[in-house]
Amino acid sequence: MSIPPVMTEFERFIVELTSAAAEVTLPFFRSDIGHVDKGGAAGFDPVTEADKQAEAAIRKVIAARYPDHGVIGEEYGEDRPDTEFVWVLDPVDGTRAFIAGLPLWTTLIGLRHNGRPVVGAIAQPYLDEVFVGGPSGGQLISRGGSRPLKTRPIETLNDAIIATTDPAIFTGSELGAWTQVRAAARLARLGCDAYAYAMLADGRIDLVAESGLKVWDWSALVPVIEAAGGEVTNWRGETPDGSGQILAVGDARIRDQALVTLKRAAL
Amino acid sequence: MSIPPVMTEFERFIVELTSAAAEVTLPFFRSDIGHVDKGGAAGFDPVTEADKQAEAAIRKVIAARYPDHGVIGEEYGEDRPDTEFVWVLDPVDGTRAFIAGLPLWTTLIGLRHNGRPVVGAIAQPYLDEVFVGGPSGGQLISRGGSRPLKTRPIETLNDAIIATTDPAIFTGSELGAWTQVRAAARLARLGCDAYAYAMLADGRIDLVAESGLKVWDWSALVPVIEAAGGEVTNWRGETPDGSGQILAVGDARIRDQALVTLKRAAL
Repeated sequence: MSIPPVMTEFERFIVELTSAAAEVTLPFFRSDIGHVDKGGAAGFDPVTEADKQAEAAIRKVIAARYPDHGVIGEEYGEDRPDTEFVWVLDPVDGTRAFIAGLPLWTTLIGLRHNGRPVVGAIAQPYLDEVFVGGPSGGQLISRGGSRPLKTRPIETLNDAIIATTDPAIFTGSELGAWTQVRAAARLARLGCDAYAYAMLADGRIDLVAESGLKVWDWSALVPVIEAAGGEVTNWRGETPDGSGQILAVGDARIRDQALVTLKRAAL
Repeated sequence: MSIPPVMTEFERFIVELTSAAAEVTLPFFRSDIGHVDKGGAAGFDPVTEADKQAEAAIRKVIAARYPDHGVIGEEYGEDRPDTEFVWVLDPVDGTRAFIAGLPLWTTLIGLRHNGRPVVGAIAQPYLDEVFVGGPSGGQLISRGGSRPLKTRPIETLNDAIIATTDPAIFTGSELGAWTQVRAAARLARLGCDAYAYAMLADGRIDLVAESGLKVWDWSALVPVIEAAGGEVTNWRGETPDGSGQILAVGDARIRDQALVTLKRAAL
């Protein structure tokens, strides 16, 4: 892959981390192992193995390079979560997509500085795509090249392409709010998981609303989207938090329109 | 791409057709043209252009090789639809995925012999994948290689991974039926369009149920799924027809379980 020369040390390092994860995850994706035994209490579960082994691989690379940094990961918990620099990891986001053979699962890696996500990567190794965001801007690194990420200007929700992973994960009031936002929008896409945020950073999707997200689900997204010109908040329009409700927009002008509805279901 | 030597003339030709379509569609996918003008009454709509130009390209290749064959396409209508061999075309299935930058749209090409689909291709050019089915079997042709397609054996709906594009397209009784099937299944994926059928043929997804499909939406799927060991019917368990309701299963044992529910909403 070609790394743009302007990228900072941490931005380059985060791309390295996605490569280390890809070496582990790709052999499990669409592997025949999944055919033999679909998992269960005693069975072998390829996506869990991919997730665990990839997180172990990422943690090893971080520990070798930045032994003072903290790490928070979905699989192996917290290690010094309150230190200055903390890496927040979800090696396989979109496990259902992974299981179903769909190349929309991602590896999510975020770097927090004093609690605020400052560098992030959304990687899809089967597509050879890494969406990176940080102080030097947003970049899609793919297939031997790279190009800047930029969200799309859009004035009104009526023109917006919006996405959520699955309305079935919403509570009653969340579903009501989503349904109203969807009715106002131009078109909606389902089933994208975190790949929807990558498409938002690339100016293809204008709004993503989800709930039930953990800190490792959203920390990587914030720097990528902000570097591309978008914004990420909770459903109150504030900094993302433990509520797990996330609203990402490519153009802040449509955020307030969506928030009118989403606020009613905000935790 | 590497074409397995056992493939029949029509199977080889259908792969050629997907290549001709890809040359047209890929430059429009994620093109910046879509950023400048999102379409509308007088605007330029990249997915409509991709669809039209690709269908024209496919029709040209068919006319040159098999001038006696008929063609049915989404964009340019019917040309001798009742002749012995008829090609059924949907150059860009999943236009919403295409617009949103998601690499799950497909080019669908089916060949009917005396009214019955006998050769089919589901192609995703950004992924360099062509799923082909016909008399010589099912093959995934991808990234310079090929391997056989085979659906997954599964005994009960409770273990099944199921998919539909968007429950919002279902009528009231269809939605009720889908919701019941979903409740019985292991997990559901949304937003896949025809790519879900490719994953069914590849043994990753076990059941797909959709409604509102046109003849060019389902004709290509039938030979691919049948060659891989699966079955495609309407929601009555009969040969697909004008009802537009499609049920595809990788293992016929779970079909009857799903039909108990789906039949109540069958047209």
